[in-house]
Amino acid sequence: MMEDIFESSDSHRGAFDLPYAETVVFPGAFPLERGGFLQDVTALYETYGKLNENRDNAVLICHALTGDSHVARHNMQDHPGWWEILVGPGKSIDTNRYFVVCMNNLGSCRGTTGPASINPATQEPYGADFPVVTMEDSVNLQKMLMEHLGIKQFLAVVGGSVGGMMTLIWSARYPDLLRGAVTLATSPCLTSQALAFDIVGRNAITCDPDFQRGQYYDKNPPKVGLSIARMLGHITYLSRESMMRKFDVDRSAARPMQTPFEIDFSVGSYLAYQSSRFNDRFDANSYIALTRACDLMDFGNSVEEIAEKLAPSTCRWLVMSFSSDWLLPPFQSEMIVDALISQKKQVSYCEIQSDAGHDAFLLPNQLSTYGGLMEKFLTNLYETRPGIEKKDIQESHCVVDVHDMPCSGDSGVLSDDYGRLYDGRIDYESILELIPQHASVLDLGCGNGDLLKRLRQRSTKSRLMGVELSERAIQKCVARGLDVLHKDINHGLQAFHDRQFEYVVLSRTLQTVMDVECVIEEMLRVGRRGIVSFPNSAYLPWRTSLYRDGRMPKIGCDEDRNWYDTKDVRFLTIADFHSFCEKKGYSVLQQITLDTLKGCRVYQNPNDCATMAIVVLSR
Amino acid sequence: MMEDIFESSDSHRGAFDLPYAETVVFPGAFPLERGGFLQDVTALYETYGKLNENRDNAVLICHALTGDSHVARHNMQDHPGWWEILVGPGKSIDTNRYFVVCMNNLGSCRGTTGPASINPATQEPYGADFPVVTMEDSVNLQKMLMEHLGIKQFLAVVGGSVGGMMTLIWSARYPDLLRGAVTLATSPCLTSQALAFDIVGRNAITCDPDFQRGQYYDKNPPKVGLSIARMLGHITYLSRESMMRKFDVDRSAARPMQTPFEIDFSVGSYLAYQSSRFNDRFDANSYIALTRACDLMDFGNSVEEIAEKLAPSTCRWLVMSFSSDWLLPPFQSEMIVDALISQKKQVSYCEIQSDAGHDAFLLPNQLSTYGGLMEKFLTNLYETRPGIEKKDIQESHCVVDVHDMPCSGDSGVLSDDYGRLYDGRIDYESILELIPQHASVLDLGCGNGDLLKRLRQRSTKSRLMGVELSERAIQKCVARGLDVLHKDINHGLQAFHDRQFEYVVLSRTLQTVMDVECVIEEMLRVGRRGIVSFPNSAYLPWRTSLYRDGRMPKIGCDEDRNWYDTKDVRFLTIADFHSFCEKKGYSVLQQITLDTLKGCRVYQNPNDCATMAIVVLSR
Repeated sequence: MMEDIFESSDSHRGAFDLPYAETVVFPGAFPLERGGFLQDVTALYETYGKLNENRDNAVLICHALTGDSHVARHNMQDHPGWWEILVGPGKSIDTNRYFVVCMNNLGSCRGTTGPASINPATQEPYGADFPVVTMEDSVNLQKMLMEHLGIKQFLAVVGGSVGGMMTLIWSARYPDLLRGAVTLATSPCLTSQALAFDIVGRNAITCDPDFQRGQYYDKNPPKVGLSIARMLGHITYLSRESMMRKFDVDRSAARPMQTPFEIDFSVGSYLAYQSSRFNDRFDANSYIALTRACDLMDFGNSVEEIAEKLAPSTCRWLVMSFSSDWLLPPFQSEMIVDALISQKKQVSYCEIQSDAGHDAFLLPNQLSTYGGLMEKFLTNLYETRPGIEKKDIQESHCVVDVHDMPCSGDSGVLSDDYGRLYDGRIDYESILELIPQHASVLDLGCGNGDLLKRLRQRSTKSRLMGVELSERAIQKCVARGLDVLHKDINHGLQAFHDRQFEYVVLSRTLQTVMDVECVIEEMLRVGRRGIVSFPNSAYLPWRTSLYRDGRMPKIGCDEDRNWYDTKDVRFLTIADFHSFCEKKGYSVLQQITLDTLKGCRVYQNPNDCATMAIVVLSR
Repeated sequence: MMEDIFESSDSHRGAFDLPYAETVVFPGAFPLERGGFLQDVTALYETYGKLNENRDNAVLICHALTGDSHVARHNMQDHPGWWEILVGPGKSIDTNRYFVVCMNNLGSCRGTTGPASINPATQEPYGADFPVVTMEDSVNLQKMLMEHLGIKQFLAVVGGSVGGMMTLIWSARYPDLLRGAVTLATSPCLTSQALAFDIVGRNAITCDPDFQRGQYYDKNPPKVGLSIARMLGHITYLSRESMMRKFDVDRSAARPMQTPFEIDFSVGSYLAYQSSRFNDRFDANSYIALTRACDLMDFGNSVEEIAEKLAPSTCRWLVMSFSSDWLLPPFQSEMIVDALISQKKQVSYCEIQSDAGHDAFLLPNQLSTYGGLMEKFLTNLYETRPGIEKKDIQESHCVVDVHDMPCSGDSGVLSDDYGRLYDGRIDYESILELIPQHASVLDLGCGNGDLLKRLRQRSTKSRLMGVELSERAIQKCVARGLDVLHKDINHGLQAFHDRQFEYVVLSRTLQTVMDVECVIEEMLRVGRRGIVSFPNSAYLPWRTSLYRDGRMPKIGCDEDRNWYDTKDVRFLTIADFHSFCEKKGYSVLQQITLDTLKGCRVYQNPNDCATMAIVVLSR
């Protein structure tokens, strides 16, 4: 039982127990962003897999606040790493394919130069003399390491939490040196709440009498202060739900241990135990240096500010957040995504449903989602490397498709379950016909990306993007190399600028939307033209069924669905839609009407004879 | 600017600056719940208004963790109290009408006996010798004060946060001594997350070298530890959103002040300032005693456990929570409510939309809601006091109705906006006809309580309850003395037992429900019979309109609503509903069909001629 609750993602060993780590010393002055410099900086790092001949298969992993270079084991005898579940041969970040690099951050106590390192000027540990370092400084050091390792360009830079902050900096500062950026559970700038927790933690350390203004290396370290800070941090890494699961069963169970801290409650014992382990492997001055670097990260506090910072970025993006992360919450990842959208960058986004809190990105619970997305994103980058023998893009997507699970069932209002009615998908053919070859297209409720895939096959240049609610459908889109955003279109398309796309498509989705007026208004703001397709309730056999039998027909939806369980909530006729457009002042530019049951176009009396209309609109 | 961010709900003055407080000493041994006793306990309290002749107009207010007896000012020269916005002449807790009592809790340092008090046995402050006290002990002391003040029975016991915990204990321990219980932002038992924050705070205090195992009264108090604990607490009282509003504007603005703590960020300055003020008025031993009492509160961690504790309660309940409260979150208030429901107690519940966090119950932002509900609840209790001249209940409700705002517009899916079609409400007459006079009834989507009010007029004894989403409609129900719960029926009726009511009514709501199967299944589980009324899409003029014109008719809804903006999402005919019941194995026991446009019953061909059906079902 004790083992059980004490188990955590924090599977680190004692300091410097890293037999496969390598170090490089960069002689001379290393200038720092906030002024001053460090002399003869040491970078400690580990690598996995092999750099290929083209030197283009390297993946840089940036670790979180108190992490280190040991991301995975090097062999079965080695200790497991902090991202063991994700990194290794055949895993999502496949070390058989990629050359994986992970460097310990500047200011840490895990091998790279930090406050406990010897200051060459004094031959004493830096202690309080260690200068203020930033995330940018760590990125600069990684860049030097990259050159040292002979890497031409990173296939991707990957980072969760603080590591995600570094990924942001990489893309802005060295845009040509990475082709992909993956962030998990990150933030452009800590919320005031998260910042406040860091500050209280530092106060606990610096006011511990043992702290001695940071000059404690020849004395007792400030264990109490560091413990308080770590306990506090630990609470913020978990969620309320995960703490309930862990501790509610035996809330009042004291666990005997040697500690100056309260252990009357099981959660108290846990925090006492975790903080004691943390003291074994971490240095208080490093904790101060690293949390301060994190707090100083200021990549903007509004979409506009972040967009300005990200303007130089040229890579493709995969951004992931976790629904129960209250430390670096999903809305902050969404701000990053919205900033990327406004800068017309290529980005996919998924808010992964999880109740594991901030630590979710280190845990196996949602691995199939975040690991799956990561794997598909990297695979796609790998298979589209410039300079390698060009495969036909269609082929390349087919290869990736093989890895995918079938997509059905769990998809929420925007997903595609009209399979039966629309078999053969003649509506896609019609929509394709209505869109010029190289036009930019936003597909609202894009499902698995079937329409976007066809558009991509027609033109590799056009800017294409999908919006979708289903995690599984998003995985499918990412596997196909498409950009897709996890958003609910009912809450508007605020992220998109006016006229950002030539076409915005709402294909077979209008009838599932509650706020029809808002969604259509928004699509015609964001797109120069909108294409809306919907089932026509006036189709004669359907309306006759109601008229004759007094029973609701199954209008336009899957045959298994009834009036009480259809996902459709809006029922309209083609004539209704036209008068809606007239009332709103929208121009109907073109219309294609179909009998999808017969699989043919309808040219006469569409309001009577068509099961579906596809209408091109503009304001 | 400095003033601005430093403004907070913590408007306390220095210790013992309470010129209107009174004290009473209870000589002899005061036995404690967790063993041991205190000798000659002093209770410090303040009172407002006058106890009436019947001694039945007293309201007990229980303060929160570090609060005190000074709930409001006694005159214009007096300092404002911590609930000044709510308590006073003409306010929600009207001191012209009620005799308000507020006692400082046991273990505090604000006048009632606590660790800083002189131990009669040693003539020294208790310090570490102060025994473990609990919320129950404070309630017992309040009970002694009640007797001392000659109060026969409390009209209501009211408490927010920790004060709400005491209200729970009152109702369970002394059920005959209160007629009403009002809780705000409370919890039956802290979550492990909230508990963890308390533990870290206590660790900071007890490991402060100045703490001296609690015997510091003749030395320096453990200011650093108490400050760390208070900073931490303060973060948990706010919400992420309220912190963003307060601090994001000038995140990096240092504010010069004398403090050992970090002030580089505006939020850091704020925390340093608040904790320094707190040190001026609070004692570390008291902080430990009171947080421990709070942590030891164990009123159950499941609905079943809480229900067992609340079984003796006989009072009426008003439970309120705040949506952004993450310390004592709404789900915990809901557990209390569900426990009360399962014990067939009279309870109303509202989750108030707020972004102010736990402190919302002290702030003016949502005063109109929580103050309004409180006022109406107390007024109703006051006007229905036993032994006073009985007014006719209908009259009494009319008096209360005068205070109400009109209810319209903001009400979410369950509210009533079918005014025009159902003018005259002949459907209510029909539903009343279908329900035996004294039957117990649960009304799902009860709106302002119009149906429940009529049922109450017919029988004052029957158990009646409503479920509603609109805050405003809930206020109206509470004003009418009805029990109403803020719940979304789409998420099930888990709180209710099988067969808890004789009738469950779903009046004009079926067509707005997404998960029809679940809602009907649940209503037939909870009620022996269900009564469902819905508009009939097969009504001939409507279906003819579609058939003839190819346009969707406005089925059963307000004339101003169209296919694209109606709140209705389900369209069915009477025949459809019957075959649904057949498929599900439900028995249709009775049916009344109406032409609500003509205001008459329909006896022939209802599927053609009725605009609405009212169907009585059972499993």
